[in-house]
Amino acid sequence: MPLHPDRLLPPDPTARAIARRLYQSVRALPIISPHGHTDPNWYADNAPFPDPATLFVKPDHYIFRMLYSQGVKLEALGVPRLDGAPVETGGRKIWHLFADNYHLFRGTPSRLWFEHSLQEVFGVEERLNPDNADRLYDRIAELLGQADMLPRALYERFNIEVISTTDAATDALAAHDRIKASGWKGRVVPAYRPDAVVDASRKDFRGEVERFLALAGAPATYEGYLDAHRSRRAYFKQRGATSTDHGHPNARTADLPRGEAEALFERVLKSEVSAEDADLFRAQMLTEMARMSVDDGLVMQIHPGSYRNHNPQLFAGFGLDKGADIPTRTDYVHDLKPLLDAFGNDPRLTLILFTLDETTYGRELAPLAGHYPALRLGPPWWFFDSPEGMRRFRELTTETAGFYNTVGFNDDTRAFCSIPARHDMARRADCAYLAELVADHRLDEDEAHELAHDLAYRLAKQAYRL
Amino acid sequence: MPLHPDRLLPPDPTARAIARRLYQSVRALPIISPHGHTDPNWYADNAPFPDPATLFVKPDHYIFRMLYSQGVKLEALGVPRLDGAPVETGGRKIWHLFADNYHLFRGTPSRLWFEHSLQEVFGVEERLNPDNADRLYDRIAELLGQADMLPRALYERFNIEVISTTDAATDALAAHDRIKASGWKGRVVPAYRPDAVVDASRKDFRGEVERFLALAGAPATYEGYLDAHRSRRAYFKQRGATSTDHGHPNARTADLPRGEAEALFERVLKSEVSAEDADLFRAQMLTEMARMSVDDGLVMQIHPGSYRNHNPQLFAGFGLDKGADIPTRTDYVHDLKPLLDAFGNDPRLTLILFTLDETTYGRELAPLAGHYPALRLGPPWWFFDSPEGMRRFRELTTETAGFYNTVGFNDDTRAFCSIPARHDMARRADCAYLAELVADHRLDEDEAHELAHDLAYRLAKQAYRL
Amino acid sequence: MPLHPDRLLPPDPTARAIARRLYQSVRALPIISPHGHTDPNWYADNAPFPDPATLFVKPDHYIFRMLYSQGVKLEALGVPRLDGAPVETGGRKIWHLFADNYHLFRGTPSRLWFEHSLQEVFGVEERLNPDNADRLYDRIAELLGQADMLPRALYERFNIEVISTTDAATDALAAHDRIKASGWKGRVVPAYRPDAVVDASRKDFRGEVERFLALAGAPATYEGYLDAHRSRRAYFKQRGATSTDHGHPNARTADLPRGEAEALFERVLKSEVSAEDADLFRAQMLTEMARMSVDDGLVMQIHPGSYRNHNPQLFAGFGLDKGADIPTRTDYVHDLKPLLDAFGNDPRLTLILFTLDETTYGRELAPLAGHYPALRLGPPWWFFDSPEGMRRFRELTTETAGFYNTVGFNDDTRAFCSIPARHDMARRADCAYLAELVADHRLDEDEAHELAHDLAYRLAKQAYRL
Repeated sequence: MPLHPDRLLPPDPTARAIARRLYQSVRALPIISPHGHTDPNWYADNAPFPDPATLFVKPDHYIFRMLYSQGVKLEALGVPRLDGAPVETGGRKIWHLFADNYHLFRGTPSRLWFEHSLQEVFGVEERLNPDNADRLYDRIAELLGQADMLPRALYERFNIEVISTTDAATDALAAHDRIKASGWKGRVVPAYRPDAVVDASRKDFRGEVERFLALAGAPATYEGYLDAHRSRRAYFKQRGATSTDHGHPNARTADLPRGEAEALFERVLKSEVSAEDADLFRAQMLTEMARMSVDDGLVMQIHPGSYRNHNPQLFAGFGLDKGADIPTRTDYVHDLKPLLDAFGNDPRLTLILFTLDETTYGRELAPLAGHYPALRLGPPWWFFDSPEGMRRFRELTTETAGFYNTVGFNDDTRAFCSIPARHDMARRADCAYLAELVADHRLDEDEAHELAHDLAYRLAKQAYRL
Repeated sequence: MPLHPDRLLPPDPTARAIARRLYQSVRALPIISPHGHTDPNWYADNAPFPDPATLFVKPDHYIFRMLYSQGVKLEALGVPRLDGAPVETGGRKIWHLFADNYHLFRGTPSRLWFEHSLQEVFGVEERLNPDNADRLYDRIAELLGQADMLPRALYERFNIEVISTTDAATDALAAHDRIKASGWKGRVVPAYRPDAVVDASRKDFRGEVERFLALAGAPATYEGYLDAHRSRRAYFKQRGATSTDHGHPNARTADLPRGEAEALFERVLKSEVSAEDADLFRAQMLTEMARMSVDDGLVMQIHPGSYRNHNPQLFAGFGLDKGADIPTRTDYVHDLKPLLDAFGNDPRLTLILFTLDETTYGRELAPLAGHYPALRLGPPWWFFDSPEGMRRFRELTTETAGFYNTVGFNDDTRAFCSIPARHDMARRADCAYLAELVADHRLDEDEAHELAHDLAYRLAKQAYRL
Repeated sequence: MPLHPDRLLPPDPTARAIARRLYQSVRALPIISPHGHTDPNWYADNAPFPDPATLFVKPDHYIFRMLYSQGVKLEALGVPRLDGAPVETGGRKIWHLFADNYHLFRGTPSRLWFEHSLQEVFGVEERLNPDNADRLYDRIAELLGQADMLPRALYERFNIEVISTTDAATDALAAHDRIKASGWKGRVVPAYRPDAVVDASRKDFRGEVERFLALAGAPATYEGYLDAHRSRRAYFKQRGATSTDHGHPNARTADLPRGEAEALFERVLKSEVSAEDADLFRAQMLTEMARMSVDDGLVMQIHPGSYRNHNPQLFAGFGLDKGADIPTRTDYVHDLKPLLDAFGNDPRLTLILFTLDETTYGRELAPLAGHYPALRLGPPWWFFDSPEGMRRFRELTTETAGFYNTVGFNDDTRAFCSIPARHDMARRADCAYLAELVADHRLDEDEAHELAHDLAYRLAKQAYRL
């Protein structure tokens, strides 16, 4: 059964007709992907993607977290163990396990993304089930070997205008250089993500800072450390970066007097760092990053509020990013104040805020973004990057911050084939919302058309200075 | 005016037609009632229910809290005072007071439950008002005397397959034994609720623990106390219990080293207990209960976040459960971690979480339940056991945790006649939600039918191991 | 294009037809405006309003905060600087800046209020844009000079039955006296807002208290200070006041033993006040105000949870109320307890609660108001005084607190021409909500008609004792 052309549009016939018109006018717009986690080596190497299980199941924590929650072992899904103990390697067997449990995904965006990919990339219009699992596996595996399924071909087929990767501060960006050197016309830009050299609570922090300073040839002083950031940011910018990204446990910022910041830096470089010092250093660095953004024009993003690796047993067995990161309450009003006091009114800064705490949309984020010139709201993130999540985002922010303090859509994904599916879902969700504003006469349809275009394309391009 | 057959189904004709089909396929399924507060003596004694006011008004804190909020005295509603001072005893007079204020219940689930009971149990299809109050009173009173209105007859008429009561750890379960001895085929099982011997902040805590230890013949050591729990849990299990229930002010858990737990136990048994010690002891006991559940297979339920007896004047006059329990913020991410670190990945544990803080649905509960194999989400509880509350629950949890990390419906009631009304409301609300997913093409209708059946019947039976 | 007669009503034809009937029955009811910020001098002086920019842009922080968030300088909008530095004075130029950025208001209530005012007050049925800006400016400017555009004429044309201003405790209420002396039949009453003499964290606190004590001829003791409140409340009451209003950073209340309260009062009168003392004094004063309300019958309002003047740079340049007040989390359950312990059951007290933290609607406010006889819920406030905000308010409070623990609508505005627009929006939003309850058969239509009338008119009048 093919995907319904009106999926995610409002059931009411009046609203649906409006939504259809809006969606038709934006569905084919190029994709701007200003924040995501695809691997730049894909575009550099242009090697074929491997088997269906490796494409759709093994690397996708949305998929395997749900299976794990219902008792499926990660080993059985082929997720590698840190200790090198054997895990399932048979792609077909993993694919069957997915098919057997496919009902778990009813009502989830993962299901919609997966089926959109199946249909649009692989021409499969059937619902996966134990009976057709083999046949679909064979079909996808066969197609994956063809030339028009290589990463660059898909980039072009997906109508991507520009895509940003996310890269460690110490990354040499060799893959990005190879892309450029290859003469390929695709635009793949890096984003500066310095968490590993900013978060002193990580085990590898001191080692990372050493490498970082060495790369920039900077001394182990606070000024040297800041210079190293300036140097690496310039390096990224030279390779096309227009943004930085900061994933912190909270939104705390600080703007310490220089002497205190220097003393703090000395303390966090020592072997034992208190939780408070680590937190304060992260806070201080957000303000320093804003200061540098004012100078070099890189757009700043803060992704706060994830309790990383909540499950220590899973973390010990499998490491990071295994679906055990859990959102926590976030306070933007008090936490962002030091940074905003310094740069909130500065027209040179664009600071894009994300959240995992939807209670802040109406209470904190929309009022802040509806006031401070430097602030913009990022789209619904992670768990909330879903039809309901997108609706809540608009319902809770539009009346206070309007549409123009938001920045369009981010797919934020490492699942390459899901990129068109995710942008399509966002376009449908926004058109559905706009159609309802037209249907109850809060907005005129000509305005809704302009907005649909802005939300699908223009705002992301402008906000990220792409 | 009879209840509308389409009540609570979506107004949009397309969605309503789908919802009708779904609802028709589940409306007559047997009732699984795995968590509630009916009195086991009703089924043991099978004595007639008293007058209409005693059936519908006096014992129902949903009803009298609303009347009280608008200035009606509890005395006038016949709610007994602790000091034995006289209160209204005239059932007809109380019924009139209810009828006079019936407009207060517009838009509330209490109104819908009450009218469903009136119609389905008593054949009354009129809206209660001061003019028909006497007539309706007489009709209900007359019917209450008939044989087909006795508790066992109603149990059968309501098509209940199994119902769980909630019982103190020290309860001898004599009523349950009498039910079994009677040869009646109804299935009434107890649930182990040890709050009175776990919450050291209660005035009667030490006395309760003494009785508890004596029942099990256990010494007043921590090990003896844990043995007493093991012994009572086994006693409950023998009588059909499949679950335990824990009503705590918060979701805090702890897993202390043995020596610390023993010292804490000694401290809480003394006359003066600090608030922190009482809190820590409750926290420790949740983890001990999980440990025992891993061993004996009882499903564990946590009901956290109620500020009990917020109104001291009312509490002094009338005691517990008088509508003055107020929800508070709850933190599951940090509070549950010690328990989850120990047993969150254990396939032998089923831990069902409830909440009075809806902000945790999307931010905490769905991400936790969508990851930890031991966790499941209980249905909307108490104030949120309503059409809007059920919709919010699904909208905020499905996309992250799916349907299969939830456990169907609990009626959680002490109002016997409202049991079919409450299950019917839940079935309608779930069918309405599913119909909207079908109507905007997120779900196929065959899947929605299977889900409707799962949500109405199968999931509760499976999750509670009934 | 004229405003659509069905705007804000549900798109579904069945629900819309019901909503239309409900709305038709309440649209022309007189306006009760029990809480707002219009200037009593307008009614006393009855002088013409100035130019369009001064009417619609310069004084409206909803308007200029959005423009500021997108980089428009407040100086360019004619907002006066504290240092007297020149700002734009050309009304036409400011008007053009507004017209150029009019798209920013898409989807906001500001847009709907503005267009309702344009059409209903000035007969303008066009959407403002850079091309028609001059023409509209001229038209409005011309009409503003006419006799039927004077404040008293507009009051009558708006069908206002009574309007409350908000006045400092030290205000002599001379304008109110002049209104009365004029013989005009309009009813304009003051409300007692003592924040300036209660909030010891304000720079001018000691000076204000001195003036306050002097006005009442009271000594600088705690008793004298309380007497001064009693005296000023009586003064306000004599001039028609029926309510007090308290805008605090949080909802904290305290009921200190007399000696402690006296010592606290001495401390806050000294030059250096700790943040905790200032907070505790505000908390204590809320309970004192409740105690006085029990005596004098003034209805009490608490507006908590705004972080005032979050932007220090803007505050230094332009002062208070420039769109930089940001909501924060509020805790009513613990914070209100001391006050409720003392007066929550007292039938003589009406305490109306507002919130900027919507997460408290279902979790705290509805359960509290659905229990305590003294409590009522104020309508959605400030950022949430919008169609979506009103819907969330009803969806989250009705099932627990019903409709009759709410108090109708407050326009809360200083924008005179927006008063009918705001009441009209509230009537539409409530009729839309009621229509949906009728459409899914939770409510009968005759009840919905009675409720629509209650929500639009009766409840405000009763709750505020007007």
